[in-house]
Amino acid sequence: MRIFTPATSANLGPGFDSLGLALKLYNEVSITEQKISSINIIGEGSDKIALKKNNTFVNIFNETIALLNGKNLNYKFNFVNNIPFSRGLGSSSSVIVGAIAAAYHMAGFKVDRSVILDRALKYENHPDNISPAVWGGFTANIVSNSSVYTQKCDIDPNLKAVVVIPDEPMNTKQSRGKLPLNYTMSECVSNLSHAAYLSSCFIKKDYDNLRVASIDMMHEERRMSALPELFRVREIAYANGALMSTLSGSGSSFLNLTYQDRAKNLAEILEKEFPKFKVKILDIDNDGFSIKS
Amino acid sequence: MRIFTPATSANLGPGFDSLGLALKLYNEVSITEQKISSINIIGEGSDKIALKKNNTFVNIFNETIALLNGKNLNYKFNFVNNIPFSRGLGSSSSVIVGAIAAAYHMAGFKVDRSVILDRALKYENHPDNISPAVWGGFTANIVSNSSVYTQKCDIDPNLKAVVVIPDEPMNTKQSRGKLPLNYTMSECVSNLSHAAYLSSCFIKKDYDNLRVASIDMMHEERRMSALPELFRVREIAYANGALMSTLSGSGSSFLNLTYQDRAKNLAEILEKEFPKFKVKILDIDNDGFSIKS
Repeated sequence: MRIFTPATSANLGPGFDSLGLALKLYNEVSITEQKISSINIIGEGSDKIALKKNNTFVNIFNETIALLNGKNLNYKFNFVNNIPFSRGLGSSSSVIVGAIAAAYHMAGFKVDRSVILDRALKYENHPDNISPAVWGGFTANIVSNSSVYTQKCDIDPNLKAVVVIPDEPMNTKQSRGKLPLNYTMSECVSNLSHAAYLSSCFIKKDYDNLRVASIDMMHEERRMSALPELFRVREIAYANGALMSTLSGSGSSFLNLTYQDRAKNLAEILEKEFPKFKVKILDIDNDGFSIKS
Repeated sequence: MRIFTPATSANLGPGFDSLGLALKLYNEVSITEQKISSINIIGEGSDKIALKKNNTFVNIFNETIALLNGKNLNYKFNFVNNIPFSRGLGSSSSVIVGAIAAAYHMAGFKVDRSVILDRALKYENHPDNISPAVWGGFTANIVSNSSVYTQKCDIDPNLKAVVVIPDEPMNTKQSRGKLPLNYTMSECVSNLSHAAYLSSCFIKKDYDNLRVASIDMMHEERRMSALPELFRVREIAYANGALMSTLSGSGSSFLNLTYQDRAKNLAEILEKEFPKFKVKILDIDNDGFSIKS
């Protein structure tokens, strides 16, 4: 079997730990039963020996398979890792979701997306990346009794993501350490009202109001201060047709959404301004992970 | 002219100062030009002499008219006040919105709902009641540069509001005084995620998930503690078919949403349990204020 799991961009400004969307940039894993276990990695992490010895995907896959059918077989894993590590594009969530879904499939169980998502929550306790990796599109999520509740909508194909990927990673834990433990009432009200309004914009396809909707008062600028070029990324994006320009997850990448006809121009301007950063034009994934037998 | 302005229920659980919906319970005001000003009040406030001497509707109406055309004419105002005072059903917002819209109409100006709403924000600095009073239906609102941005959706006619109106008022300022100045990160994340999810439920007409969506961590139970019967109102509502049961604005009323076929039964049970409280079955207003010449 082969499983493809999309990159994701979480928070989307005000939707801290809650909102996210999926991108057409996939980690691919081929799995076949074999007498001796083996791991092969192409792309991100191919130079890291540790990833062959202690591989999170393999660990979660084995744990899930054992839980489902009690068996402990050996497999050959071929990884094609396209999602950059530690750049706020959901590479960990892709690994978690992919491993669980692949295990359900290989164990002969029904791959029920809600079930996969709830199991993924045991490995990552915010639904903002794992949910769009499972469902695709835009998702608004809550957690109740260890279960994720998702409202999903597709995003129009004429919307493109122009993603800016800095050469430096940002560590999620360090990045979270920069955030205050408490927020004022007006910060809370700002974020909850903007998160509600932003979700409505996506569902109603009112993309022209994404910019005013995507204001955050909790985390974004505090995190961006670790990499001040990101303020200029946002400024340039908004000056060149971005509908929305937000820190992707906890960074370091920046997500810019724009209409199709402006994507190439925006990408070129950003590439020129930030020669050390990668700039990718990506489509939105509306389907979540997919399995090919 | 006559203007009808609906009652509104704000917050809807997690949507503190931001979300609201409109109810088919209207304050009606008839206005005619006359040589000598006069005020007549039927219903709520008819026994309050102060309301004839210093009437907020009349003050805002005159202020707005003067601003629009510089004139200072005299009018006869006939009020039919159906929205109870200080019960969290948006009676102040109804007065503000009604007065401004009536002034625009009487001054011969176009009654543009966005303009009316932005002017109303000068008198009430949260959009959660004034917005549904203007637009009807469910509204998610943000404020940017003194302007209200609204995402609105209609609510299905088979949804009814069973509103419980206690005999005691709750003062908004006192009620707000009970609230902390700061909130933890997890309280913020809970409210923003639930507000986003709840808005999506309304827009997508996924009413069966309203209950899990409507959890609040900022204000509701802190305010309910001033009138502990409200905890029982919620308990009974949920045990008898309520889809959602939330404090209306800052109280004291409670908003229960339910499907049409359960509304009467729920209302009867609540009436029996709380003989001192009024219980009203109300339709949802999807239109906002209306003017009849």
